[in-house]
Amino acid sequence: MTTVGILGGGQLARMLALAGAPLGLRFLVMDTVADACAGQFAPLLVGDYRDESALAEFASKVDVVTFDFENVPATSAEWLAARVPVFPNPSALAVAQDRLAEKTLFRELGIPVPEFMDVPDRLALDAAIAAIGTPCILKTRRLGYDGKGQFRLKSSADADAAWQALGAQAATVGLILEAFVPFERELSVVAVRGRGGEFRAWPLTENWHVDGVLSASLAPAQVDAALHHTAIAHARALAERLDYVGVFALELFCRDGVLSANELAPRVHNSGHWTIEGAETSQFHNHLRAVLGLPLGDTGMRGHACMLNWIGAMPDAGPVLREAGGHWHDYGKQPRDGRKVGHATLRSDSGAGLMAVLARAGEGLGRQAQVAPVLDALRGR
Amino acid sequence: MTTVGILGGGQLARMLALAGAPLGLRFLVMDTVADACAGQFAPLLVGDYRDESALAEFASKVDVVTFDFENVPATSAEWLAARVPVFPNPSALAVAQDRLAEKTLFRELGIPVPEFMDVPDRLALDAAIAAIGTPCILKTRRLGYDGKGQFRLKSSADADAAWQALGAQAATVGLILEAFVPFERELSVVAVRGRGGEFRAWPLTENWHVDGVLSASLAPAQVDAALHHTAIAHARALAERLDYVGVFALELFCRDGVLSANELAPRVHNSGHWTIEGAETSQFHNHLRAVLGLPLGDTGMRGHACMLNWIGAMPDAGPVLREAGGHWHDYGKQPRDGRKVGHATLRSDSGAGLMAVLARAGEGLGRQAQVAPVLDALRGR
Ligand SMILES: Nc1ncnc2c1ncn2[C@@H]1O[C@H](COP(=O)(O)OP(=O)(O)OP(=O)(O)O)[C@@H](O)[C@H]1O
Ligand SMILES: Nc1ncnc2c1ncn2[C@@H]1O[C@H](COP(=O)(O)OP(=O)(O)OP(=O)(O)O)[C@@H](O)[C@H]1O
Repeated sequence: MTTVGILGGGQLARMLALAGAPLGLRFLVMDTVADACAGQFAPLLVGDYRDESALAEFASKVDVVTFDFENVPATSAEWLAARVPVFPNPSALAVAQDRLAEKTLFRELGIPVPEFMDVPDRLALDAAIAAIGTPCILKTRRLGYDGKGQFRLKSSADADAAWQALGAQAATVGLILEAFVPFERELSVVAVRGRGGEFRAWPLTENWHVDGVLSASLAPAQVDAALHHTAIAHARALAERLDYVGVFALELFCRDGVLSANELAPRVHNSGHWTIEGAETSQFHNHLRAVLGLPLGDTGMRGHACMLNWIGAMPDAGPVLREAGGHWHDYGKQPRDGRKVGHATLRSDSGAGLMAVLARAGEGLGRQAQVAPVLDALRGR
Repeated sequence: MTTVGILGGGQLARMLALAGAPLGLRFLVMDTVADACAGQFAPLLVGDYRDESALAEFASKVDVVTFDFENVPATSAEWLAARVPVFPNPSALAVAQDRLAEKTLFRELGIPVPEFMDVPDRLALDAAIAAIGTPCILKTRRLGYDGKGQFRLKSSADADAAWQALGAQAATVGLILEAFVPFERELSVVAVRGRGGEFRAWPLTENWHVDGVLSASLAPAQVDAALHHTAIAHARALAERLDYVGVFALELFCRDGVLSANELAPRVHNSGHWTIEGAETSQFHNHLRAVLGLPLGDTGMRGHACMLNWIGAMPDAGPVLREAGGHWHDYGKQPRDGRKVGHATLRSDSGAGLMAVLARAGEGLGRQAQVAPVLDALRGR
């Protein structure tokens, strides 16, 4: 009997546990809060990730450790790795936790990135704005998620406001200034690498964000083969360099048909949720297979799939459940502003079929605006 | 927040809970033993199904009740139904629990059945053998499963041995004598009926038993459209007469292209496990949708699927996990002779593809004999 420990008890841990049950696995989830939604389907250990006695209890009860939450302190991940196998390895996690380290690695590997500069203090901000130009984005180096910890600058006149918003964090989590990319589309590669180096990617996904939070994903992304190939090659190079084990996502911008890398998410990813119903093997199954050293499953997809995120509160499920390819995912969370509480996946054998399903479901849900960009993409704009 | 109560905590309850999580459901499973495998992923209440205080606790904690185990005493189901909605309804359950009632209903509905007669005592056995002829099978009316509680008679000379084996049960669970059907194949309809009467069936499945226990299932069964249509019409007639709500299986024999009914299983069914990966909506999802009054999901299938049962102990997963369409299900049970401990589903877009996958996996698992009849069926024998 193998017990998988998961640091973080949100929806990703929940979906990992549900996917892992058929492999005969047991789970232990660690989270800082007692109502973490994964706790509804797996034993939950409540504790602080920095508390060594909690970590020791966790380590003593699990055979292997992985993550639902990438911002677990790297030192805690290392502490655990000295006692029990941890995948992905803590050094890969450390790179993905720091936008500066991550982007430096992208550049080293020849993966194009938007211009960026470290911003240790107020003077450096002016220098960075002068070098990179505007528009640009000031971001915290660490601990950002869902667009939090970001400030957009239209011109250098916004420097004071940006510093006011984020300057205090220069000394704690660090800051980075990035060129703003007027992208036409955002894409992600969701891929998996096994303990023996086996690498597989699902078809590229196109993503739409609203207020910095993922709103919709479409797979396969409507891109040409060359772009597809390049994106996956970038993901593979990264995974190999980091000796990465498990599922990860590489978020990319596409402008004038050219890709640049935004970030690496060292875990199963929201833009891969469609794989549950849309692929032969889901990202959750394959993450566990990778972490356990089992053969990886086929990442081929079935038809076309669109994932719609539910933020804040769950809509009525009816319009989705009434569609032949409509699948519902309620994370069992309390509603709260800005919180990811669930998603739906709509699947169809053809792009035209998916358009019809999306249009009907969008209308039924009163979410026409959420599905509109996906319909545009399917229409070839 | 809706909590679904499940009577019985085996693999069916386990797979129901795993399927229900994405609907935002909570579960409470009741079983007589503390290590019931559904308890690994859902809260478990240990108690006897006849114990009113346990039933009262169960009823107070759930919003709706359904079954993993059809042999829950009908009186307990009725006791619960007076307090909380129970699906399928206790009277449908009562019919399915009694082979005599079940077969009488089949006959009433014009569904062909093998000849059968009630056997209340030793004299009635002789009369039944004389009327039905041999070979025939003496079965307990109630509480049989996986071929237990059955005795096959080759000739009337076996009557004493049959009575010796089962006669004591005439006074407790009752006995029935059935004609032995020299069938060419066994089929099952797995179907679902909603609270509003909506009815859907998955494609017909062909099944192979070894020692009375399901060994392999193939979907879609290789049958002509007329037979398919008749089988599903029988299932529909049954569901409507019983005002059945939820998933059920109708097990059928096919001899010289003619169907006769064997039994009704009033729950998700082993021959429907392939629907997890092989159909747009699995039997587990649709059972919950039905029980909760939600729209039913599409029962269309994807390609061809074969389910192989693991009895006694789990084989090595490698040969299945290495196949593109290979999916593993370990129920987290202790190995035990004759126990259903898991299954695998192999899926492929084409019949030829499935043959190749099955041949390889069967060889890798050392289970050539288990896959052989399925390969024969795919080959058109
Ligand atoms: N340099 C940029 N140019 C243009 N848009 C950007 C840039 N950086 C971020 N964005 C926009 O903001 C979104 C969120 O940014 P980013 O992925 O860096 O933040 P995050 O907080 O890590 O988000 P997540 O948790 O979704 O990964 C991006 O998906 C993109 O839409
Ligand atoms: N009348 C019959 N003629 C021929 N074979 C029969 C007959 N009845 C039962 N069998 C064989 O025995 C198997 C098990 O019988 P049956 O379904 O009645 O028992 P069960 O104990 O309820 O099984 P399960 O739990 O699998 O439904 C059947 O699938 C079939 O292979």
